[in-house]
Amino acid sequence: MHPEQSTAAPTLARPEAATKPLALLYMADDTYRTMFDTELLRRLDDMVDTPRPRHVTRLDSPQARAALTEAELILTGWGCEPLTEQDLAKAPRLKAVFHCAGTVKHLLPPAAWAAGDLVVTSAAAANATPVAEYALAAILFSGKRVPAYAEHYRRRPGDWSVHGMLAVPSNYQRTVGVVGMSWTGRRVLELLRHHDFDVLVADPYATDQDAASYGATLVDIDELVARCDAVSIHAPALPETRHLLDRRRLAALPDGATVINTARGSLIDTAALTDECTSGRLYAILDVTEPEPLPADSPLYGCPNALLTPHVAGAMGAETRRLGALTLDEINRYLTGQPLRHLVSAAQLARIA
Amino acid sequence: MHPEQSTAAPTLARPEAATKPLALLYMADDTYRTMFDTELLRRLDDMVDTPRPRHVTRLDSPQARAALTEAELILTGWGCEPLTEQDLAKAPRLKAVFHCAGTVKHLLPPAAWAAGDLVVTSAAAANATPVAEYALAAILFSGKRVPAYAEHYRRRPGDWSVHGMLAVPSNYQRTVGVVGMSWTGRRVLELLRHHDFDVLVADPYATDQDAASYGATLVDIDELVARCDAVSIHAPALPETRHLLDRRRLAALPDGATVINTARGSLIDTAALTDECTSGRLYAILDVTEPEPLPADSPLYGCPNALLTPHVAGAMGAETRRLGALTLDEINRYLTGQPLRHLVSAAQLARIA
Repeated sequence: MHPEQSTAAPTLARPEAATKPLALLYMADDTYRTMFDTELLRRLDDMVDTPRPRHVTRLDSPQARAALTEAELILTGWGCEPLTEQDLAKAPRLKAVFHCAGTVKHLLPPAAWAAGDLVVTSAAAANATPVAEYALAAILFSGKRVPAYAEHYRRRPGDWSVHGMLAVPSNYQRTVGVVGMSWTGRRVLELLRHHDFDVLVADPYATDQDAASYGATLVDIDELVARCDAVSIHAPALPETRHLLDRRRLAALPDGATVINTARGSLIDTAALTDECTSGRLYAILDVTEPEPLPADSPLYGCPNALLTPHVAGAMGAETRRLGALTLDEINRYLTGQPLRHLVSAAQLARIA
Repeated sequence: MHPEQSTAAPTLARPEAATKPLALLYMADDTYRTMFDTELLRRLDDMVDTPRPRHVTRLDSPQARAALTEAELILTGWGCEPLTEQDLAKAPRLKAVFHCAGTVKHLLPPAAWAAGDLVVTSAAAANATPVAEYALAAILFSGKRVPAYAEHYRRRPGDWSVHGMLAVPSNYQRTVGVVGMSWTGRRVLELLRHHDFDVLVADPYATDQDAASYGATLVDIDELVARCDAVSIHAPALPETRHLLDRRRLAALPDGATVINTARGSLIDTAALTDECTSGRLYAILDVTEPEPLPADSPLYGCPNALLTPHVAGAMGAETRRLGALTLDEINRYLTGQPLRHLVSAAQLARIA
C-alpha cells in the first residue's frame, strides 16, 4: 500500500508518511538484477524514492555519498560491505537497514548495535525455504538410499544386481531429527508434517510446546542422535555449536543413519563423519563442509555413502526474489507503522546465525 | 472393528458376519515378513481366521489346496502367481481377492474378470506415497541442479569453481508438470501444494475441476511440455501411452528442463531422452527405464545431466506396511458392509496401470 493512501488509523501512521522517504540499495550488481524483477521494483517505487541509478555497489562514490546524506532507509544485500562507523556518520537521516539476505551480525559496527537506534531487519526467513526444501528432498531420498543407489548403479552399468543391494530405511514411520528451531529448522518441521515420520527436535531455547506445535517431540541432542535414522542440522554456527555433531554423537547414531548439513560446516566434525561414511556405517548429504571446499584428497568425494553439493541450498536465481518480496513487505509495515516481523536486535545476535 | 462386535446397522452387516471367514495369504516369504508386523497381524486375526502356517508361497501344496477349498478371502502380494481358472475352480467359497500390491490387471484370468463375481481390490494407493515422495524430492533437487552439481563436484574434487558453474531454475514460481492423475499423480499434486510452484496437469480423463481441486491447471500434454521446467510422469503403461514423451515432445521442453520417470520406462523414448541429456540440453531423473536396466554402454550412466536409480521408488522395507494397512482397512470395510475404497472392476482395466 502506498503510504499516502494509507487507511491505517492515524496513531499507526508515521508522521513523515506524507512524503516518500529516500531509500538507497547497496548490493552487488547481480544480486540486484536477480532479486528485483519489474514487479518488485514497481512495489518499491510505490513506497520510496530512490536515487538514479537506483542501486550502488560501493559507498565511496560521489553518487553513493550524496544519496547517503539523504537516505532514511538502506536496503543491503549480497555483495555489500559491512557498514562502518564512517559510513553511518555520513548518513545523518538513516533510520533503518533492511537486509535482503540472512545474517546481519556483521552488517553494523558494534557501536551501532550497542546504540540500538537503527531498525535492522533480516530476510533470513525467506532464505529458509529453499534450504528447507533441500533438506526435505535429502531426507526423502536418503530413506530410499537414492544417492548411494545412483552411485553404485553408475559404477556398475547394466548390472541389475544393483537392484536390491542396499537395505533401505524407507520413509514410513521413520524417526527423523531436526537440530535447531531456526527459521530453516521450523520450515523443515512444517514440511515434514506432510509425510509419515516420527520427528524429534533438539534446541536449547525451544519448549515442549514449540516442538509440539509442529507435531514433533523435544529431546536433548544426545537422545536425538541415539534415536534418529536421519538428522538434519539447522543450528547457527557459534563458538558453542562448533562440532555439535562430534565424534561421540556421530558414533551414537544408529547404523545406516544419514547426516544432512545445509547450515555450516563447522557444526560437524568432518574427520569423524568421513570415517563413519567411508567405513560404510553412516550416510551423509552435505551442502556445506569444513573446510569448504573439502581438500581434493578427501575420501568423501569418492564415497558412495556421501553426496556433496557445493553450497547450493540457499536462495539461488529466482529464489532470491523471495528475499526481495519479504523485504518490501517489511518496508511496507515500517512505513505504515505496523509491527515488523523480521526485526533483529543486538540481544539476539549471540544465538542466531 | 471385530465383525462380531459390529455396531453397524443390520442392513449394512454381512449375513455371514457371525463367524470369522477364512482368509488365505498368498505371496512371497519376504513380502509377507516385511509387510505384516505384529500389529498388522493382530488386526488381521481380529477379523479373519487363517490356516497355519498363515501364508503360502504357492497354491499347489496340500496345505494350500485345503485352505483354498474353505477360503472366502485371498490376500495376494508380490511373489504370487496370477490366479488361474484351475485355482479358482478349487476355491468354491472365494468371494474376494485383496491384492496387497499395485497392479491387478493380470491377477485374475480374463473369464473371472468378465464374470465379475469376485470382489478385487488393489493397494496401489498405498504404493503411491513412496513413489510420489521420490518424485517430489526429484523435483526439488532438480530445481537446484543437485544431481548435476554433485556429479561435477565429485569429478573435480577440491575445485571451488564448481560452485556457481550451473544456472539453476530454482524452486520459486517454477512451472512443474504432472502427467497422469493416477493415485501417484494425485499424491504428487498434493505434495506440490506445499511449495511455490505453478503446476500444470495433463490427463485425458481429468476435468478442469479435478486439476483445480489440487490448485493445478489442466492442459493438453503438448502445452504441458512446452511450458514446464520439470515434468514428472505418472501415467499407466498402455499400448497408447508407449513413448508418450517421444522425441517431438522432448524437443518441445524448454532448455534445462528435467524429465522425471518413476512410472514405467516405456512411457519415454529412451534414445531421444539420452540424446537430449548427453547434449546437455535436458536433465533426467529416472527410476525406471526401457529396457531395465539400460545396457551397460548407455551414455546415460556417465552423464552428469542424468541420475539413474534401479527401480527403488515404490514401497520398500517398512513402506510395504502401508499396503498391508490399507488392505486390512479394506477387509474391515468388506466385512462390515461399508463401501470399498480400492475396488477394481473389469471396466477400469483398460485405463489403469
